[in-house]
Amino acid sequence: VEFDGPCMKTEVPGPRSKILAQQLESIQSVVQVNFFCDYEESKGNYLVDVDGNRMLDVYTQIASIPIGYNHPALTKVMTDPKNMGTFVNRPALGMMPPEQFSEKLVNGLMAVAPKGFSRVQTMACGSCSNENAYKAIFIWYRNKMRGTPEPTPEEVRTSVINQVPGCPDLTLLSFMGGFHGRTLGCLATTHTKAIQKLDVPSFDWPIAPFPQLRYPLDQFERENAREEARCLEEAEDLIVKWNQKGRHVAGVVIEPIQAEGGDNHASFDFYRKLRGITKKHGCAFLVDEVQTGGGSTGKFWAHAHWGLDDPADIVSFSKKMLTGGYYQKDSFQPDKPFRIFNTWLGDHTKNLLLTEVIKVIKTENLLDQAKRSGKVMLEGLYDLQDKYPHLLSKARGIGTFCAIDVKDEDTRNLLLLKARNKGVVLGGCGTQSIRFRPALVFKEHHAHLFLDIFNDAIAEL
Amino acid sequence: VEFDGPCMKTEVPGPRSKILAQQLESIQSVVQVNFFCDYEESKGNYLVDVDGNRMLDVYTQIASIPIGYNHPALTKVMTDPKNMGTFVNRPALGMMPPEQFSEKLVNGLMAVAPKGFSRVQTMACGSCSNENAYKAIFIWYRNKMRGTPEPTPEEVRTSVINQVPGCPDLTLLSFMGGFHGRTLGCLATTHTKAIQKLDVPSFDWPIAPFPQLRYPLDQFERENAREEARCLEEAEDLIVKWNQKGRHVAGVVIEPIQAEGGDNHASFDFYRKLRGITKKHGCAFLVDEVQTGGGSTGKFWAHAHWGLDDPADIVSFSKKMLTGGYYQKDSFQPDKPFRIFNTWLGDHTKNLLLTEVIKVIKTENLLDQAKRSGKVMLEGLYDLQDKYPHLLSKARGIGTFCAIDVKDEDTRNLLLLKARNKGVVLGGCGTQSIRFRPALVFKEHHAHLFLDIFNDAIAEL
Ligand code: FES
Repeated sequence: VEFDGPCMKTEVPGPRSKILAQQLESIQSVVQVNFFCDYEESKGNYLVDVDGNRMLDVYTQIASIPIGYNHPALTKVMTDPKNMGTFVNRPALGMMPPEQFSEKLVNGLMAVAPKGFSRVQTMACGSCSNENAYKAIFIWYRNKMRGTPEPTPEEVRTSVINQVPGCPDLTLLSFMGGFHGRTLGCLATTHTKAIQKLDVPSFDWPIAPFPQLRYPLDQFERENAREEARCLEEAEDLIVKWNQKGRHVAGVVIEPIQAEGGDNHASFDFYRKLRGITKKHGCAFLVDEVQTGGGSTGKFWAHAHWGLDDPADIVSFSKKMLTGGYYQKDSFQPDKPFRIFNTWLGDHTKNLLLTEVIKVIKTENLLDQAKRSGKVMLEGLYDLQDKYPHLLSKARGIGTFCAIDVKDEDTRNLLLLKARNKGVVLGGCGTQSIRFRPALVFKEHHAHLFLDIFNDAIAEL
Repeated sequence: VEFDGPCMKTEVPGPRSKILAQQLESIQSVVQVNFFCDYEESKGNYLVDVDGNRMLDVYTQIASIPIGYNHPALTKVMTDPKNMGTFVNRPALGMMPPEQFSEKLVNGLMAVAPKGFSRVQTMACGSCSNENAYKAIFIWYRNKMRGTPEPTPEEVRTSVINQVPGCPDLTLLSFMGGFHGRTLGCLATTHTKAIQKLDVPSFDWPIAPFPQLRYPLDQFERENAREEARCLEEAEDLIVKWNQKGRHVAGVVIEPIQAEGGDNHASFDFYRKLRGITKKHGCAFLVDEVQTGGGSTGKFWAHAHWGLDDPADIVSFSKKMLTGGYYQKDSFQPDKPFRIFNTWLGDHTKNLLLTEVIKVIKTENLLDQAKRSGKVMLEGLYDLQDKYPHLLSKARGIGTFCAIDVKDEDTRNLLLLKARNKGVVLGGCGTQSIRFRPALVFKEHHAHLFLDIFNDAIAEL
């Protein structure tokens, strides 16, 4: 059984965390470290730190813990002697996969494949998932342009030295406020904070505006629709213009909800129309579900809310999926070996754990749970912003994937600390938002508990 | 105790492997799959496949298994209930590290830190290790140019939209035949096979020639020295020219032995002089030890053979280190949080395993073992190329990190298959080389066994 609530013994970080941070500082930068955790003692929705503080976790390691801490189903995977070989010997999955590889994919990633996808490529994190999805898009687009997968001798020769035509001048269209990772390819499509990009060389690729909507969405439908139409028009214009100047837009990459960028929503209709534009202009459509995927919106994939039969060409994932990777249409699988490849191609231990996670999500009906808990949360957030209109605004969300804005960045950061000292772990996003990212085992009573504590913290501002 | 030799029951891939490949084919490309493995049954230097074939493994999952399969020290880590929480809850290591994080780094990565390095940044694979090392280099170089870590408002504004000066037009110098990974940043410095780069947009960065030496190195010292002088001169020329045109060379990236590119060696003197050139021109020097690191050259880091007091600014690693990451000089650690960051920043389960691996390497004197086994291997390879001069040439290596060339690509590939069916797993590199990458527990008698079987396979050509 889970703990019955937070239990705070010290301020966070407490004395033990501070000592550990000092030790770590001689080896690594610790400016980002919040506090040190006791992962053995943590359970369900509760994260326990090294000073014995027990906190309700509404951030879950940046949205990456699917079914809470130390779920017995996962502990069981670890104690099953049959799994030992998987955990101590990491295979090169692309060349010498383990016996149970297909089976675990069938019962894991493929059991929750988005509609219309029958193929998945495993990777290890969100960044390599997107980097390789980008490569698959470029390869697909070039094959289309060339009319054949066979390169010319000139392409073969120039590719090794980074020159056209072998390394073509293709582009990807991304959106302001989007976040797709921090390796150099991903970073060229990430446009959130300067500090994430500053001083790093990048690709000159087209960037479209993302709709700046007014919340709650259903109260501002008409003006939001105008804003979305403007952004769609600009996106299409960019595709046409860049194609005309010979720097073809091979693909469009977008999140179903811009998470790191500030939990920016757009309507399902916006995404449906954007998908139409990509089809019209022959661009691949990559939906990045690294943060939105895995069930917290009440559907396993956030893009499923759009209700399209053919929502995307590639869907990338990581975080709560434990492994990384992407689902792809058949036509995006390269024709030749070693075009999409690396030593490990993921980590089979994560596939074992994910298979159990998916079982638990199904047997415990956790998608419905996310809908119910999300309803409590969002209604509570609406109440709070009514109660504190000078402090809070723009409560928004789907399922438990919720957020709220605080009047400014400093107040937001102060509120995060106050909530933490009262026993709730939260994370920021954008310039002045708080994102709520509980695990799927977050129930209605956890939502009520969170709202109570959050209210107390706000009241102290 | 280990098995006493290979034991073959079928051709490889056998019938069970073929059935599993058919199953996997409905989900993924299987063109790269060699065969399926039974990782529970594999032990020490022997890899067992799903058809019960037991093979001496001289490739070790592309050089990534440090101390053989199912080493009891690693099994023990898994069965220790104290470690359970680490294996089922993956922390965001940069924000909420586990209690034992520093301790495991001290007894793991820092216990084998290259001379002169007191700081390490963990990552998850070779690609994110290099990608982030590149970013650290660019940030360091820009700070130097600017004379302050504080960006101008113009830099802040332009960085978010991929434009200069925020995303500056800096470059990295790499070498023909070098391999540093396949994500877009890494790929811009990789110059091995066209198939790895074709159709993917890249950065126009300077590429220097890597010395094409004659083997054995000690018999061709004078002409090899001339070739190395030519390459060094060209590298320095490139740095000067690119700096002059305003596209400054922020860093130079190189492997101590070009592995994927064909096990191309250069003399220690070449590397010492190259290090001097980077210092002279203010470029960072990044030594990529992803494949060479971890002990197989008889020293823990291949660059230690150069005998320099200040061999590098950054040393990246992965593969046999289980985790990824890089050691860095203090000045390369960014001044602000979230410049080098991602959700997981590695995987603490790998730190636990690595700590045990390092203990085993020390208590079992495995670096000396690699020297001894390497001597047997290399002498055996010399004998074989004397015996089959029409087929084999250029036997070369340091420790067990050895290679040999076969007369052409088709013959090389045929030899790999023949050796496999006789019970030895090998891997190719470059266009016509075979690379030998046994684990550190590969003893003299394994080397003799390998040479016998390899000889039989060659005799059949
Ligand atoms: S880039 Fe994904 S694990 Fe390294």
